[in-house]
Parts: sequence; structure tokens; C-alpha cells
Amino acid sequence: MRTEEHAVTDETAGAAGADETGGHDLRHHGDAEVRDDGAALTDLAVNVRTGTPPPWLRERITASLDSLAAYPDGRAARAAVAARHGLPVDRVLLTAGAAEAFVLLARALKVRRPVVVHPQFTEPEAALRDAGHSVDRVLLRERDGFRLDPADVPGDADLVVVGNPTNPTSVLHPARTLTRLARPGRTVVVDEAFMDAVPGEREALAGRTDVPGLVVLRSLTKTWGLAGLRIGYVLSAPETVAALERAQPLWPVSGPALAAATACVEPRALAEAAHAAHRTAADRGHLVAGLTAFADRGLQVAGPAEGPFVLVRTPDAAGVRRRLRALGYAVRRGDTFPGLGPDWIRVAVRDRETTDGFLAALGAALS
Amino acid sequence: MRTEEHAVTDETAGAAGADETGGHDLRHHGDAEVRDDGAALTDLAVNVRTGTPPPWLRERITASLDSLAAYPDGRAARAAVAARHGLPVDRVLLTAGAAEAFVLLARALKVRRPVVVHPQFTEPEAALRDAGHSVDRVLLRERDGFRLDPADVPGDADLVVVGNPTNPTSVLHPARTLTRLARPGRTVVVDEAFMDAVPGEREALAGRTDVPGLVVLRSLTKTWGLAGLRIGYVLSAPETVAALERAQPLWPVSGPALAAATACVEPRALAEAAHAAHRTAADRGHLVAGLTAFADRGLQVAGPAEGPFVLVRTPDAAGVRRRLRALGYAVRRGDTFPGLGPDWIRVAVRDRETTDGFLAALGAALS
Repeated sequence: MRTEEHAVTDETAGAAGADETGGHDLRHHGDAEVRDDGAALTDLAVNVRTGTPPPWLRERITASLDSLAAYPDGRAARAAVAARHGLPVDRVLLTAGAAEAFVLLARALKVRRPVVVHPQFTEPEAALRDAGHSVDRVLLRERDGFRLDPADVPGDADLVVVGNPTNPTSVLHPARTLTRLARPGRTVVVDEAFMDAVPGEREALAGRTDVPGLVVLRSLTKTWGLAGLRIGYVLSAPETVAALERAQPLWPVSGPALAAATACVEPRALAEAAHAAHRTAADRGHLVAGLTAFADRGLQVAGPAEGPFVLVRTPDAAGVRRRLRALGYAVRRGDTFPGLGPDWIRVAVRDRETTDGFLAALGAALS
Repeated sequence: MRTEEHAVTDETAGAAGADETGGHDLRHHGDAEVRDDGAALTDLAVNVRTGTPPPWLRERITASLDSLAAYPDGRAARAAVAARHGLPVDRVLLTAGAAEAFVLLARALKVRRPVVVHPQFTEPEAALRDAGHSVDRVLLRERDGFRLDPADVPGDADLVVVGNPTNPTSVLHPARTLTRLARPGRTVVVDEAFMDAVPGEREALAGRTDVPGLVVLRSLTKTWGLAGLRIGYVLSAPETVAALERAQPLWPVSGPALAAATACVEPRALAEAAHAAHRTAADRGHLVAGLTAFADRGLQVAGPAEGPFVLVRTPDAAGVRRRLRALGYAVRRGDTFPGLGPDWIRVAVRDRETTDGFLAALGAALS
């Protein structure tokens, strides 16, 4: 594990290129891998559950279009999300996806030394840089299983960002590891965008009010197939929620997104998500078993994987990706994640049939 | 006309109350007047065209729900909006409503002395204050017909915000008046949220590339009944567009909103908007004629009104509003707009039948 410092001045913030980001394109995302010529590919690059949104959810969203002419009123959705986590409404902020939450955190909090734990989703660091911050990195290492030791976070860090389970490593950090990051004057942001894909939401911090400085981010995008709708939420102390809310535009979340949020925290939806999480775990087991069979060709699976995706190390990953595309499969490149090199790819967990097709293609691509 | 200075410190920004804003609640909007107990009222408070969105537009938005699981790709909508105004795409930025644009302008531009021309929509000033700026006001006066003289804007203002046609005065400033505001080092923001309700878009600056520092904001909310969807756009020089874009979250505009934007700039939609603008002008004539009949009871119409709403001065406006609510009609209070006092109300232009009902109620409310 090591800590790197990348000073970003006002002049370079917002235009962060290779020099400031250690050569990583922080603004590369999986959706770029299936755009344009990727439309005909089987998508294992984007971590959105297949077959989503389900028909009942799409019906709820369609029904909300009846009131499009009215300005959105987020109060009911906010109350529903608060109730789902057993929290008062002043601890909940609905946002236009987790992406908006990262921008709000970067702009609204008074932060002097933000630290991002990598490899992870790159938007938090990109948003901090765009807001003019210098960002330190804690780089977790493969030989440590990409696990976090709280002692490796600089003591004077007043903002720490970590994903759980982490994209792209699929590592699920113990809740007690993350709560040990808390200390006076520090904000600990735990991105739980994929937590609802973990059976029982094991190690979740959402709903906890006993951890000072805790900010939990949630997304409805992945489990519910709402990437296009822009809906997520922040759980934190009332004063932090209020500060973030003041930095939001008026009417930040659309009416259809509010309708979706309300629908996705109802008991029926929670039961469906729980079922999907167990199915994902089984499907992931099938994928990992298939991948492990390629160990003799130098392929290694980071693990144990606990999210709806698996991080894979393979020689000539770029060539493997290219050959997979030719065979009809898109996977996510790993080299844009700080802490990962050119040998990595990320593979979404799909149903067994899709996975079997992918594994056959991978066998050919590795040849 | 006079200029007021309101210094806002870092501590008070974002919590601007009566002391900093001259007693005006900048965050009061018309939608609050029809929420909750207002649900049963005939709404003349919110300036959204009735009968919207039209069925064909709703169908387009519904069809876009097929791709909700995919992250939004704004390129096609951006190109369509650019083509509608005869501009290259790098002069266009799609935003989550004009409200997001105000936040981006307040945060992304390097501004030292912003000036807002009042009375007008209060979000620009609120966004500037929330971003920590001190905001100067130019207050247009009733006896000048709420018309702007460019000489009244402080010469060192490096950001000037003006609405055209202006909400709530309904005054349409001549394009040449606004272009005279331009000077080196100054950004001139013209909020044209209601311009598509003006027949022929007379005095529009959208599409102009010959005015240095010009930023034009457009909304699809009012004409198309998309207040709930959050979609608008900015037209400006490429470098300004790029600066604003860097301050946006990733995937700032939802898929359904992008589909709506594409649909609303097609020739069929532009023709429908043009037709609606002429009908609004006729309906406004009917409303103004009816209002003028109450001149003997002290009621005065600010004018000439050119937008889809009319500003009215009447003694005991609060009492009139209260009695109108009891009679089933919601109108917009005027006293939250800087430059207007307790005697003002804003009335949306509706069809003749609705207007006749309202005028009858107003006659009773004035008694």
C-alpha cells in the first residue's frame, strides 16, 4: 500500500489529464465500451442488472409521466427512503444519481486534505479535482487482496472516500474496518452503490447514526436498471445533508426519478432486490469457477468477489479485450483505474447462459 | 432605478435570510402556491402551459423508457438543439433545467461583481449567493415600465443577469438594449426561458454569435409542460460552454429528458410552439382587457405584457389572494420578488374560459 500525492492547482483542476492523474483517464466509464460500435455486443462492461427495470417498475415510472407538467416535489420520496433505512428525513438527501452526490460533496464540504482509496470508481476523485482540490490516494494492492487497513489512511485526512463493495475490485470491506476510519473533523464517505447486490446487505453502514462524520451514498441504478433516470441518495447527519442540499440546484431530481425512488424502497421491491442479490451471488460463483479454470493460462481472479462484477488479471488484457469484442463480448478495461495496470479487466456477473457463452469466448480469446 | 449592494460573506451564503436579501424569500416559487391544500385550486400561479405535455410528446418520452437501463448519452439531443439554433454543438450545453444552469454559472465562472436586474426570477441571485458571491441589484421601477436602461448597470459589473421576457414583469426588452450590455470582460446572461412563448421569438438572442460574453438560457419546461423532467440548455461561446460542462456532474441530464429535448426542437414541435405563442398572445389580450376593467377599483396591469403571465398591482394583494383561494383560484404572490412590494400578484395566461372564471372570482375578491 502506498500514498501518492497529486497537487492540482486552480489552473489545472477541471482539465486533469495524464500529468495530474498518474496517466489514468478518470472520466472513462463502462458505458463507453458499449456505445456506438458496441451496440451489438453482449455487455459485460456495465454493472447494471440485466432485465431491468422490471415491468412493474416501468409501469410506475410511466404513470408518473401524468404529472410531468408539475415541478417535482421530492418530499414523499425522501420520506420513503428515510423510512426504508429507519432514519428521519433530515438525514436523507435525494440526488440526481450518485454522480451528483460526488459533485456536491466536493463543492459543499469544507475540506483541506481529501483522500480517495483506490482502485475504485473514479468519479469521486474527478469531482474533487474539478472542484479545485488536491487529492491524495491510498492505493490498495493486489497482494493484500485489495483490502483496506485504516492505518494506511493519512491521519490528517479530513475526507476519506471508499467504496463498499468496491468497484472494480469487488472487495467487501468489513463495516468495522470502515467505522475505524472515523475521527473528529473527518468525513468518511462510503459509496454503497452496489451494497444492495450483497445478500443481506452485509457490512452496510446505511442507517447507522453512531458513526461521526459518516456519509453513505446509495444508488438505484444498478439493481433496478435506472442508469438513464439519474437517481440516488445520501445518508448523513442533518447538518451535512443541509450543506449538500444548499449546493443543489432547485428541483434537482426529476419527477419520474422520484417516482422510481419511492417504488424501489417499497417492501415488494426490497424483497425482489434481496432475491436478486442471492441470484447474483450464485451466478458470480459460476463465473468465478469458470474463470478459475483458466488459471493455467495465467488468468487470476481478484477475490473474494462480493459485488455483481469480478476483477480479473490476465496477460495481454488489451488483446484479450479486442479478441472478445470480435467474438461479440464487451468487458470493462481495468487500466483506467488508479492502482491497476494494463493487465486487468472487469467482468459483470450475468446469468449462467450468458456467462457460459462469455467463458467459451474467453477461452478462444486467451488462445 | 437604483442599485443596491448586499454583501454576503462565506458564513451567510447559502443561508440567506431576510437580512441579506432585503426581506425577499428568493426561494419561494409558484409551485408552492398550488402544493398541498392548493391541489384543488385552478392554477394561475405556475407559468406552465396548460394541456401539456401533448400526447405525441408524452409518447416520445414513454418510448425512451425502453433504454432506462443505459447511461444517458446526450450527444444526439445536443446536436438537435444546436441545429435548431443554427449553432455548432460546442456552443450548446444541455442542463437539468435552467435551475442547474444558474448553479453552474455561479460556480464555474470567475466573477467578481455580479449584478442581477430585478424584479426577475430569483434563482439566479439565490444560486450566486449560495456560491458565496456578493450580488448587486439593479431594481427596475414601475414608473419606468420595468424597462432596462443599460446605463443603469454598474460599469464594472462582470456578470449581468436579465430575463427576457422578464418573469414576473412580462416586459420584453429590445434585443439591442441587451446587446448594449456587452463589453470586454463581462458575461451577459439572458434568461430566455419564456421566449418561445413570444410570437416570432421577437428580440431573441439565442443563436447570436456576434455578442461577446453572451450566455442565453432556454427552458423546455413552460411551453412543453416538462417542469417535472428537468431539461433546459445554455447557448454560449465554446470556452464558456466547456467551463460550465466541467462543473456538471457526470450524466447530468436523464434519458427521458434528452428524448424530450430532441423531440421539442423538431420542426413539428417548433410549429406547434409558434402556434401556441400566438394563441397565448390572444389569450393574454383577453386577460389584460378583463383586468383593465377593474381599474376603477385600484387594479393596475404592468405593461405592455409580452410573456405568458401578467403582473398586476392591487391594494390589499394578500387579501385578494386569500379570497381568490377561497373562490378556487391560485395566483402567484409578488412580494417575494425584489423590487416589488406587497401590492403585487402575477397571473398566468390561460384559455378564455379559465380566464373568464378567474375574472369573475377576482371581481368578487376585490369587493
